[in-house]
Amino acid sequence: MAEYKVPLEDMNFLLFDVFKADQMWQRLPKLAEQVDKDTAQAILQECAKIAEQEIDPIAREGDETGVSYNNGQVTTAPGYKEAFATYAEGGWTALGGDVEYGGMGMPKMLTALHEEMLCSADISFALYPSLTAGAALSLAKHGSEELKERYLTKMYSGEWAASMCLTEAHAGSDLGIIRTKAVLQDDGSYEITGNKIFITGGEHDLTDNIVHLVLAKLPDAPKGPRGISLFLVPKIQVNDDESLGDGNNVSCGSIEHKMGIHASATCVMNFDGAKGYLIGELNKGLACMFTMMNFERIGVGIQGLGAAVRSYQNALEYAKDRGQGRALSGAKNPEQTTDSIMVHGDVRRMLLNMKALNEGSRALSSYIAMQLDYATYGEGDIQKQGDTLSALLTPIAKAFFTDLGFENTVTGQQVFGGHGYIREWGQEQLVRDARITQIYEGTNGIQAMDLLMRKVIGSKGAMYHVFKEEVLSFIEENRQNDHLAEFISPLSDSLTDLTTITQELLEKSTVDVEEIGAAANDYLHVFGYTAMAFVWAKMAQVSLASEEIDHDFYQSKILTARYYFARLLPRRLSLLASIRSGSQPLFAIDDNLF
Amino acid sequence: MAEYKVPLEDMNFLLFDVFKADQMWQRLPKLAEQVDKDTAQAILQECAKIAEQEIDPIAREGDETGVSYNNGQVTTAPGYKEAFATYAEGGWTALGGDVEYGGMGMPKMLTALHEEMLCSADISFALYPSLTAGAALSLAKHGSEELKERYLTKMYSGEWAASMCLTEAHAGSDLGIIRTKAVLQDDGSYEITGNKIFITGGEHDLTDNIVHLVLAKLPDAPKGPRGISLFLVPKIQVNDDESLGDGNNVSCGSIEHKMGIHASATCVMNFDGAKGYLIGELNKGLACMFTMMNFERIGVGIQGLGAAVRSYQNALEYAKDRGQGRALSGAKNPEQTTDSIMVHGDVRRMLLNMKALNEGSRALSSYIAMQLDYATYGEGDIQKQGDTLSALLTPIAKAFFTDLGFENTVTGQQVFGGHGYIREWGQEQLVRDARITQIYEGTNGIQAMDLLMRKVIGSKGAMYHVFKEEVLSFIEENRQNDHLAEFISPLSDSLTDLTTITQELLEKSTVDVEEIGAAANDYLHVFGYTAMAFVWAKMAQVSLASEEIDHDFYQSKILTARYYFARLLPRRLSLLASIRSGSQPLFAIDDNLF
Repeated sequence: MAEYKVPLEDMNFLLFDVFKADQMWQRLPKLAEQVDKDTAQAILQECAKIAEQEIDPIAREGDETGVSYNNGQVTTAPGYKEAFATYAEGGWTALGGDVEYGGMGMPKMLTALHEEMLCSADISFALYPSLTAGAALSLAKHGSEELKERYLTKMYSGEWAASMCLTEAHAGSDLGIIRTKAVLQDDGSYEITGNKIFITGGEHDLTDNIVHLVLAKLPDAPKGPRGISLFLVPKIQVNDDESLGDGNNVSCGSIEHKMGIHASATCVMNFDGAKGYLIGELNKGLACMFTMMNFERIGVGIQGLGAAVRSYQNALEYAKDRGQGRALSGAKNPEQTTDSIMVHGDVRRMLLNMKALNEGSRALSSYIAMQLDYATYGEGDIQKQGDTLSALLTPIAKAFFTDLGFENTVTGQQVFGGHGYIREWGQEQLVRDARITQIYEGTNGIQAMDLLMRKVIGSKGAMYHVFKEEVLSFIEENRQNDHLAEFISPLSDSLTDLTTITQELLEKSTVDVEEIGAAANDYLHVFGYTAMAFVWAKMAQVSLASEEIDHDFYQSKILTARYYFARLLPRRLSLLASIRSGSQPLFAIDDNLF
Repeated sequence: MAEYKVPLEDMNFLLFDVFKADQMWQRLPKLAEQVDKDTAQAILQECAKIAEQEIDPIAREGDETGVSYNNGQVTTAPGYKEAFATYAEGGWTALGGDVEYGGMGMPKMLTALHEEMLCSADISFALYPSLTAGAALSLAKHGSEELKERYLTKMYSGEWAASMCLTEAHAGSDLGIIRTKAVLQDDGSYEITGNKIFITGGEHDLTDNIVHLVLAKLPDAPKGPRGISLFLVPKIQVNDDESLGDGNNVSCGSIEHKMGIHASATCVMNFDGAKGYLIGELNKGLACMFTMMNFERIGVGIQGLGAAVRSYQNALEYAKDRGQGRALSGAKNPEQTTDSIMVHGDVRRMLLNMKALNEGSRALSSYIAMQLDYATYGEGDIQKQGDTLSALLTPIAKAFFTDLGFENTVTGQQVFGGHGYIREWGQEQLVRDARITQIYEGTNGIQAMDLLMRKVIGSKGAMYHVFKEEVLSFIEENRQNDHLAEFISPLSDSLTDLTTITQELLEKSTVDVEEIGAAANDYLHVFGYTAMAFVWAKMAQVSLASEEIDHDFYQSKILTARYYFARLLPRRLSLLASIRSGSQPLFAIDDNLF
């Protein structure tokens, strides 16, 4: 297995050449205080070291050994405790945190790249700090001053971790029907009782305490999603002097045996009258939870990307090294018995699919992260636009990047032939690890409905209009640039296709609402390929305009952009045809005829 | 996990309604002696019992326990020995075998369905008898009378198993560079020395002896593939009285730890001057091996289908049972807290994709098996046509069915949400097991080159022409049938597309041979979707013409055919666009720019 090498050059290219993050940060006062180009570059470099040297080396053994469960205790795989300690000591658990409580206040554009590095190194490891960061975000936004002072600082310092307790056995996508109960106590706290499943990091030995954010319902709460509240339930109670006190009635009943992410503890958590504290308002728990959703969902998208990047690096090294057969056009390496498999068109296809989709995902992820930063740190129109674009594009980041990420790990495994199927090379682990990203944090089917029903149709097309205008203005700016015509013209076609199908679905949905569910998954992917064409055209523009255009990096960008437009953007054509066939093929067939 | 239920109704429909196998068998004297409709139906029913009752129940535990290796010995998972004994006692190891040596001489149309059942139940188990059957085929065709009498009868009886020893560490797709040596001995036998990897069933405890078919080279053999010979190397030598004699210098050095098919032993085999016997002519080993390739490769395609069928059955049962959310058009089940997830468009999309692709694959597989039977048992033109069509379509069966099979296992896992990712439901095992089918027996990339370069372009389009005429004559026969127009018209379009792209590639390949490698994978899939449209149109025709058209079975067929044409056949559009972008996007980029 190749050693993981963080693609720092591409990350710097995106931040400073394509999206000019440093200029943006200077314009946003809250960010200008925290970060500039030098700081950001130093952070990326240091983070790369941690990912490459501390986290990457524990991933294979983590897969083999996994976490173990014994009588309520969860023991992480060899090396995880040490790696987490190093990670926390380096201050990385505080990277995106609120500065008032000890966080470093770094923008999402930077933390997103940091997340990618962690996930390329090891998704299982990355989940512990990333769940904690997500919970911290919710707490920072909605928690009382007292809760924040008591819990947030320790979460940022890495002394404590956190979990998000949503799913119950009968309630996954449909949280409105959860049964976990919260009963108000005389001291203002709540007694929490119920069982949660699939809780990532619900129990482990990495930290002294674990802060559970738990969705539950008061006995007299309204039915459905409007009756859900959010509670903070510590594994171990915290005394007024901030020392650890008594245990709480929280226990881990078992852990799941899974296809992958073996080193991540997926727990059944039992709350048996545990002491909890309300976060935010009563019955507004879902809203509090959704605060972090945009941040978390792009994070899951990045997990898929991370695994795919790792798979690409391994596959490329293997392909260069592996000799089988000869080039169709004649031996390229006649003094050896064989050519390397890089000469075969189909191997190049596999590698270029991975390269173009990975770099495209990283670019689109950076673009969405930028919108999240505008939404968080901007003001006025720019804030509003960032809010709209990040909300619109987040389900795409989650579902599109993870579908592509999984596809790419499978492709990277295929490059290895039989060696990709055996465990020692690590390629099959990446497939197994990446697979979960299409499922958790809202299945990709749910994401597609979020995009099409809640956002596009829910806003009567207004949110889509913002995206369309953004791309159109880029197209108009570059309409006269002959060098860019090969990218601008198909981008323009693709945008027209997307706008047309959006309009058609807005109309159809008023006649037959099932058209939405029938189209959602294909629509998300048409949108994804178009948005990715937009960022590929941007990258091509910057590369073509560079003074160093002859450098390998820029040449590679331009040629990969061409590949994307030639070979990958056409994927939308089949999806459009499928959408246009309508809901009838899906709903004409009775359940008993399946 | 749902209990596996063999889709006997669909199998009978294909055999007797769609392809009229019984009439075909009557016309072919060698088959007429062996099989008729009643026999075939009885065989399918008995085989279904074995698959459902004996093999299916050991699969989950087989995955958990796997095979184990200790000092050269391989122990299979609990229950495998007993299941194999029952299977062999039932005579199933002889099903397709040569009647002269104790085989049952059943046609491929029947054994293909038998293979599907085994693979739906457990691919790992299926591999032991299927490798043996493949080796027996080679031996029956090319072995000397003496070898056949001594080995074939015991392989058919299930007393002995077999393995195929091709791959070496440095030589997988490129067999021309193997290093295993064969040296002629005074007694006419050969001394075989070398190391083979990835040998399925190379060692195990299911049978008393294992017959290895080994590719090796004589010291003075020509370089490359024309210097390869095929040898029979028994694990234990056989005395003249057919009793087992001394051991042979063959040993299993280790077994692989793999992503899936844990209960199948994948062995490193060491031949240290082992006694072997030539099969067929010297230096014609690859040809002897390829005798079985068409039979084996369709078999691997069927493995992918088998896993996908199982995944569909599980997913359907789960979807009907699982309640989450409400139908967009209003509650379908208002007296319950939720509707079943069958109401959601995206869940229906996933299930119908699986159903349409599985039933389409089974139909196309039956069609190809029919061509193999014509090639084997027919005479004159019908034999020649069967030979051409089976050779042409075999790489499609292998690569297309396994790509779809893997896709469908992933889809079936997705229907389960988080429950699909944990081991207990079995859905993730199907994904891991199915994945190997895209890799072994020639990667799917190799299959695509076999189709486009060797067959289509190698015959200057002549082989394609035979397929085209076959579909065209079906189209012409049904051109006036208004009920069928909805299928005939898009089938005709799809065939035109395929013919046009074939013509384009024939022309382009004379200008730039790399166009072939650049197009091969996409071309295979365009071909696959078109061939599948052909069999779906056939199934629709038969269903529409049935006197029992109102029956659920025929209604389901007609509606599923509609789904295929509406939602799946359009997949070819993107692939065509990708092919037309040519080889330039793949080859313009230097290796160092990847």
